[in-house]
Amino acid sequence: MNKSALQIARAAYQPKLPKVLKGAVKALDGDATQSVADQEEIKKLFPNTYGMPVVTFAEAGDVDLPAMNVGVILSGGQAPGGHNVISGLFDGIKAINKDSKLYGFLGGPSGLVDHKYVELTADIIDEYRNTGGFDIIGSGRTKLEKTEQFDSGIEICKELDIKALVIIGGDDSNTNACVLAEYYLQKQCGIQVIGCPKTIDGDLKNDMIETSFGFDTACKVYSEMIGNIMRDANSAKKYWHFIKLMGRSASHIALECALQTHPNVCIISEEVEAKKMTLAQIVNSIADVVAGRAAEGKNFGVVLIPEGLIEFIPEMKVLIAELNDLLSVTSDVKEALKGLSAASAAVYNSLPSSIAKQLTLDRDPHGNVQVSQIETEKLLIAMVKTRLAAMKAEGKYVGKFSGLGHFFGYEGRCAAPSNFDADYCYSLGVNAAWLIANGKTGYMSLIRNTIAPADQWIAGGVPVTMMMNMEKRSGEMKPVIRKALVDLNGAPFKALSDNRSEWAKETCYVYPGPIQYFGPSEVCDLPTKTLVLEQRNKK
Amino acid sequence: MNKSALQIARAAYQPKLPKVLKGAVKALDGDATQSVADQEEIKKLFPNTYGMPVVTFAEAGDVDLPAMNVGVILSGGQAPGGHNVISGLFDGIKAINKDSKLYGFLGGPSGLVDHKYVELTADIIDEYRNTGGFDIIGSGRTKLEKTEQFDSGIEICKELDIKALVIIGGDDSNTNACVLAEYYLQKQCGIQVIGCPKTIDGDLKNDMIETSFGFDTACKVYSEMIGNIMRDANSAKKYWHFIKLMGRSASHIALECALQTHPNVCIISEEVEAKKMTLAQIVNSIADVVAGRAAEGKNFGVVLIPEGLIEFIPEMKVLIAELNDLLSVTSDVKEALKGLSAASAAVYNSLPSSIAKQLTLDRDPHGNVQVSQIETEKLLIAMVKTRLAAMKAEGKYVGKFSGLGHFFGYEGRCAAPSNFDADYCYSLGVNAAWLIANGKTGYMSLIRNTIAPADQWIAGGVPVTMMMNMEKRSGEMKPVIRKALVDLNGAPFKALSDNRSEWAKETCYVYPGPIQYFGPSEVCDLPTKTLVLEQRNKK
Repeated sequence: MNKSALQIARAAYQPKLPKVLKGAVKALDGDATQSVADQEEIKKLFPNTYGMPVVTFAEAGDVDLPAMNVGVILSGGQAPGGHNVISGLFDGIKAINKDSKLYGFLGGPSGLVDHKYVELTADIIDEYRNTGGFDIIGSGRTKLEKTEQFDSGIEICKELDIKALVIIGGDDSNTNACVLAEYYLQKQCGIQVIGCPKTIDGDLKNDMIETSFGFDTACKVYSEMIGNIMRDANSAKKYWHFIKLMGRSASHIALECALQTHPNVCIISEEVEAKKMTLAQIVNSIADVVAGRAAEGKNFGVVLIPEGLIEFIPEMKVLIAELNDLLSVTSDVKEALKGLSAASAAVYNSLPSSIAKQLTLDRDPHGNVQVSQIETEKLLIAMVKTRLAAMKAEGKYVGKFSGLGHFFGYEGRCAAPSNFDADYCYSLGVNAAWLIANGKTGYMSLIRNTIAPADQWIAGGVPVTMMMNMEKRSGEMKPVIRKALVDLNGAPFKALSDNRSEWAKETCYVYPGPIQYFGPSEVCDLPTKTLVLEQRNKK
Repeated sequence: MNKSALQIARAAYQPKLPKVLKGAVKALDGDATQSVADQEEIKKLFPNTYGMPVVTFAEAGDVDLPAMNVGVILSGGQAPGGHNVISGLFDGIKAINKDSKLYGFLGGPSGLVDHKYVELTADIIDEYRNTGGFDIIGSGRTKLEKTEQFDSGIEICKELDIKALVIIGGDDSNTNACVLAEYYLQKQCGIQVIGCPKTIDGDLKNDMIETSFGFDTACKVYSEMIGNIMRDANSAKKYWHFIKLMGRSASHIALECALQTHPNVCIISEEVEAKKMTLAQIVNSIADVVAGRAAEGKNFGVVLIPEGLIEFIPEMKVLIAELNDLLSVTSDVKEALKGLSAASAAVYNSLPSSIAKQLTLDRDPHGNVQVSQIETEKLLIAMVKTRLAAMKAEGKYVGKFSGLGHFFGYEGRCAAPSNFDADYCYSLGVNAAWLIANGKTGYMSLIRNTIAPADQWIAGGVPVTMMMNMEKRSGEMKPVIRKALVDLNGAPFKALSDNRSEWAKETCYVYPGPIQYFGPSEVCDLPTKTLVLEQRNKK
């Protein structure tokens, strides 16, 4: 591997650990737990893993534990810090007993099913400490849902004498990890399953999980770029930058980046849905901000847009559903368009032609509109431009509007982890090793009190069933971990809504700059604004 | 101003200076100089500023100099470090005499003409030390070319008792600075003019100027993003990322980013032009790399594309010229297309329809094709996809191709300067103050030996006329600073061409990570690969 100067220097970083995880720990069990909703159904589906207590770790003094082999799996999209979960897990099982072995299943969950794996030795692990990416063993999106898959997993675990699997993934992957844990308990095959909360989207969090790993780093990378673009906007004073940010189902990334950088406009999908806003209302609200600034001679600005916006606009959701239905029976677009309801036809006709084309022509193999392919930033630029022309004709706008679109997503998923993510992930990994050593299964690795310095973090585990409820998926009710959307009554959203009229009018940009690894702690160890606001509020 | 934690910590950074600039200096004059070409014409146009010697500064011991007021102008596109040139200039004139004053002309050269200015006091300067952007006084693209503009400048300089102007800009702005210096000498009005070499594009360099400021930081920001995307590509293993990089007239940025990150393909416009490559040849060469990797199971990769590529492809240049001519007499696209030569019609018909549309419909107010609006990254993705389909039909390609386009430009122009740019720019500013104190005009601020530690840098000045030749601009021969294109016989290009077949086939990605300000010197103080290769080679 060719290494950059920074990578070489950063390899030596020793991630900070909670004090308790610096030695052996024992599990202190709390009270029995319940799922967040649908208790009866969840209990029936998870007879062996339901109701288990939240676990907190305490120092155990000297212990003598047998060697244990562990398998690790990366599941789903990349998030900064995955390699540190694995190096923490490696160091954890080696500290427990130096003869323990770590196996990495290759290319995601399919590696377990297809018996593709590699032993992760110290030499390999040392190449990946504090680095971004999931390339150490690769990731994949195969879902572990079927008993044949589970049984195939048992085979390879028996062959390699694997005592436990650690699955690093998002809400779905952790749900599946729990299904697997339940199945292995029923089968009494002695294989434990532990999950780790991963996703840059930040939507895997709740009363127990304070944040998912990767969110911190990804938001900092995006905020670096947004800040740079803001400084450019404020220097050139002639462009409006519309920046779309990754994150389809929740707007945590857009919100966090807004709190870090103070854009003129930041759209939050959850608010759009709650207020049943139309596309025209969104466009008009942006155009009003543009016109307001233009009136003061400021023909520049920055707008943040969450990637999933389109799907949160009620009328767009209806239009897309109608198009999917119509285009499933005919591939003749003109014919299909005739079938639209009057309301949807009106929405469709309000769209710029390039976007209308994306809605009808770019369909996936099932005939569905590919929502993720829609260039929402360009859609809004085009519609704001049209709106401003109308306002100009009415004498309500004086100025020049020149829009530039950006999309930030892939830039942040594999960035090298910030100190926060490096420490948090490494702790999650060491902690997972101790959950295994303490015989736990169906748990998620849990590190709390994360806005305090790392040595004060609290280590333990939370039963996955505690976070579940029943939701409809492809027409069927399924047990799933409840996704955390942006809470419109929460402190982070309030920090936006309290300030956004000032941010719209004035130029309050903040330039966070690049993630720093070697400087003063107040620069290098900052958690996200979202985490601080949420956790401070809890206290 | 709301400041980020990093901005607050970074404000305290004291940029490194060449040893000689830590005290008073005197100018040592070298031999008389000549322009790089067209000596007779240049001499005639610049009778007062032609032939002046290169100046090197030496320690002067204690000197007692009068106060001097200076005006500063930012010209053209933003580049990281502009604020440090200004803070260096401020500290320089204050060190010379504490009663000196610095005036900033607002919004670029037009501020001088329209008498819009602000006095830059210590309070203001301290807010901008080591920050990105040009927002301290703003920039602009007004060209200083007419005597009325020059005379208007004299008025305000007399009013403010300004002894000298410092113009921070690219090749054109520095040419104009010299025209101004010449005019002010002819008029004997006693106003000196000094230039500073700015441009992220890296094309303002020559035997004297080792690098323009901003290139270092911008390339590092782009390389951070490219590295992150590479790690994502190598983790997800399913996308080909086509990344377009800012820089229209030269490919230095793409080349430097390639040397920092080792992409699978990097196109260099100067090579395309020299080899008279067709669009089809470029597409085929990329498709061959994709097919080669696919044969080994690697359906992912990264391609770097210089923004100006289209204009360097001979057949595209002809097509665009023909379209400009045809569309200047008719706005009927169909009619205009009939007028294309057979060769151009063939090229036009080979283009994806969305790009063909950009060529004919998106025209500027003069009817010209807007080359900068052409989404070259998407053009290449579409054409490579088509080519691969043909290769698949012939059995020459097995694999899946999924292309994603990116454009990095605005993200880098206003980033906070790297240590190199912070030091280099601050030195250029202090140095400019001493050129003024030594009575120089028509000079560019010159800092050399820049791959050595900063205290060994050599300070002085170079006459702008020395860098000039005559070139045709809008049909007229004009004196201009010769632009530095990528030298196909130079060490940086050789470092690419020697390695690119390996980089194409293997996965040799390097992940530079974010710019660091506080870490070990081997991480924080690295100059660009281009600079090191060029300067080492010179020695």
